[in-house]
Amino acid sequence: MKYRAEINIMPLKALLDPQGKTITASMKNLGLEEIENVRVGKHINLDVHAGSREEAKEKVNTACKKLLANPIMEYYEFELKEGDVT
Amino acid sequence: MKYRAEINIMPLKALLDPQGKTITASMKNLGLEEIENVRVGKHINLDVHAGSREEAKEKVNTACKKLLANPIMEYYEFELKEGDVT
Repeated sequence: MKYRAEINIMPLKALLDPQGKTITASMKNLGLEEIENVRVGKHINLDVHAGSREEAKEKVNTACKKLLANPIMEYYEFELKEGDVT
Repeated sequence: MKYRAEINIMPLKALLDPQGKTITASMKNLGLEEIENVRVGKHINLDVHAGSREEAKEKVNTACKKLLANPIMEYYEFELKEGDVT
């Protein structure tokens, strides 16, 4: 069975996000004063082959912990969908 | 009314994603051969004040087009949620 994982990796809420702050400031120059609290992270899509949803979840967790996210500065969350999603 | 936008900005499907390719290759070294088709983009959260959902949508579209996404290389999609979401 193939699962599609949609992973978001974001800077921890307790940390400043300089890139987000800069974008928030730039919004003002674009006349978009109504936009605030911009935070920037990564979005990662991947396909994982696994026998069950539980197994797929475990593999994605391993990938996030070992490679994709840096737990000192980031947290991650993901959704799993079944089958080919484009 | 305050809306929270969750924006994903991804490399266009027709384009190679060298960062994603590298991560796919690294998965093998971690013993995660079952993971493939990794693509890496940005995830951006922001709050927008607007009178209506339509207005909020328009503002987020403007922000994406003018500042956040590069349409030559990226496409974007977003979800709007009402109120304070943490």
